[in-house]
Amino acid sequence: MPSDEVETHRRRGRFLMPLDDVETPALLIDLDALEHNIGVIAKHYRGKSIRLRPHGKNHKSPQVFAMQVEAGGTVGGVCAAKVSEAEVFVEAGAGNVLIANQVVGVDKIARLADLARLVETTVAVDAQVQVEQLSSGARTSGVVIGVVIEVDTSMRRGGVRTTQQAVALAKLAARAPNLRFRGVMSHQVPTGRPPSRAQRFAEGNRWITHVLEAKRAIEAAGIPVDLVSTGESWTYDVAALHPEVDEIQGGTYVIMEVPYAYMSEFRFAARVMGRIVDRPNPHTALGDVTIDAIGTPNGVPTVDAPAGLRVVSIDHHGVVLRGEGVEDLALGDTFLLLTHQQDVTINRWDRFLGVRNGVVESVIEATARGCIN
Amino acid sequence: MPSDEVETHRRRGRFLMPLDDVETPALLIDLDALEHNIGVIAKHYRGKSIRLRPHGKNHKSPQVFAMQVEAGGTVGGVCAAKVSEAEVFVEAGAGNVLIANQVVGVDKIARLADLARLVETTVAVDAQVQVEQLSSGARTSGVVIGVVIEVDTSMRRGGVRTTQQAVALAKLAARAPNLRFRGVMSHQVPTGRPPSRAQRFAEGNRWITHVLEAKRAIEAAGIPVDLVSTGESWTYDVAALHPEVDEIQGGTYVIMEVPYAYMSEFRFAARVMGRIVDRPNPHTALGDVTIDAIGTPNGVPTVDAPAGLRVVSIDHHGVVLRGEGVEDLALGDTFLLLTHQQDVTINRWDRFLGVRNGVVESVIEATARGCIN
Repeated sequence: MPSDEVETHRRRGRFLMPLDDVETPALLIDLDALEHNIGVIAKHYRGKSIRLRPHGKNHKSPQVFAMQVEAGGTVGGVCAAKVSEAEVFVEAGAGNVLIANQVVGVDKIARLADLARLVETTVAVDAQVQVEQLSSGARTSGVVIGVVIEVDTSMRRGGVRTTQQAVALAKLAARAPNLRFRGVMSHQVPTGRPPSRAQRFAEGNRWITHVLEAKRAIEAAGIPVDLVSTGESWTYDVAALHPEVDEIQGGTYVIMEVPYAYMSEFRFAARVMGRIVDRPNPHTALGDVTIDAIGTPNGVPTVDAPAGLRVVSIDHHGVVLRGEGVEDLALGDTFLLLTHQQDVTINRWDRFLGVRNGVVESVIEATARGCIN
Repeated sequence: MPSDEVETHRRRGRFLMPLDDVETPALLIDLDALEHNIGVIAKHYRGKSIRLRPHGKNHKSPQVFAMQVEAGGTVGGVCAAKVSEAEVFVEAGAGNVLIANQVVGVDKIARLADLARLVETTVAVDAQVQVEQLSSGARTSGVVIGVVIEVDTSMRRGGVRTTQQAVALAKLAARAPNLRFRGVMSHQVPTGRPPSRAQRFAEGNRWITHVLEAKRAIEAAGIPVDLVSTGESWTYDVAALHPEVDEIQGGTYVIMEVPYAYMSEFRFAARVMGRIVDRPNPHTALGDVTIDAIGTPNGVPTVDAPAGLRVVSIDHHGVVLRGEGVEDLALGDTFLLLTHQQDVTINRWDRFLGVRNGVVESVIEATARGCIN
């Protein structure tokens, strides 16, 4: 790296270290790729009314969230699966919160009410008892909590199953004290991966239309709707075709992962770098990346570099590598792994390294790591 | 709980909270089960020369390590897969260290040498270049580092593959400056699970005998051996039949996990407690335990209670439960999950709750959580 470039970075107060000096294993975030991914959404949403609500569960980092907001095209607020995650992002400056999940119990609702004191806070419901608990908790705390009806679209997890249920629950929420009824939300996953672009649009449109039917039925019942939150990384462009959709809850696109490779406009931003620590025989190399360092929910990680290598197994002691070119590896040589589930990997690290042009340029804190409830 | 019992706990300075008041999800450690498991080893090794070397990767907690040492039957030191783990346990008072893994590179060896300044430190090798690097690093730091030859027994990971390799490497290590050659070590896993007791003994004996052959060949070459470290939780009793075995590296037995259920003398000590947060339809309940809270390397966790339930899926939003009795579950009801890989689960928590008789009695810090390199 030219010394004037180093100087520029120093002036910006950035941390600089050649990648060769990094102790392994290390979670590297390619800043060019990260900025590219954030830029794809910002550019696509420019001039449209749809906005991205960055999902905090994916990167766990207020620093990355700030980059998303700064790039534009977002709601300025955060999406979270848990109250604890939302707390971290609100403390770091998130302008509003959607808990895209059910929140139950006096303790949790009290924490939600504390958030509602600071920023506009909305939570998903799909049952009468949740509405009653939320209303009661909000009243006790003297706040107003926003409510959206979760509509089940493909996840078979939470969410009302019929439009009738959505309307009934909306009526209840609209008249519950200290609640503000806002609209509908849903998640969806593609049933087949990797789908073609045409399949992706057909499937995405089907689910989004299903949510919009619930929205229209609620409006037809005389209840105003001001929020339709549906779509994810894989439907960011499909959702943009529907003017009634206000926001999507996107997360995977920022860091990316192997099963999302079909979304080829996004780039893999995260790699775990390791070093070869053993060559027990000519066909095998052991690396220092353990299961503490990378998520492996679907088996083993994919080797990004050197090309030709594959992961045979991974455990607490390290990773076993085989394949073409393994015989050329010496102790201390580096390799890069891609993750199959980026959010699980991110959650194993308290911080990761922002890398550009072979230099560590920043340390990114994953402040929401370990937010469990 | 009777008030005099509460008083006794208070006098002992223990933290007390009824389980009903615990915010979920929570990682509960059944202290009776933990003490029982620790006691099985301590009792079995009483009067024998074999000792347990507690593996820090399993519980990540100096507090649990202290319980193991206090119960007896241990070497008073710790086993670790990574230098960072060993650093935490030595800082907390571990009397000596075995890194049951290869340590490579100037930075890591310097950290190893720092440990060797504080306590007796031994590390596994299986290649000439490692011996040379360690010797050079130990000399630079002015310390002596202990060395054991790792022998491959079933893992197909690290370890020399032949007795000839073991002898050649032992000769090299025995004359390398600033190294102290100590002996041999190995790990092994049963090829079939769950094996019968007879199969377990046959298989364990075969691997242990393989390690002892290497040990005897090294001795026959005129090099004294003072450490044979082999065996694990599943062979703690098999290894005790071999007077030449000095220590086993045991970890899983303390917390236990579903795939180890065949070791029926040990009890499941860890459970993740969650609460029902949604009943989207009569056959489904959603719980608040996410993949941030429990390791699921082999699919989904097992439901311990209520009986009859099973986990259908788990993600960042929670866990989907179905099965017999699901229709009786109300929002706020608790359930308990058993983990299929305890070390991965432990590593997701910064601390867990020690529970006895339905009361939280202590908070146990997992200080070595996140030790990645």
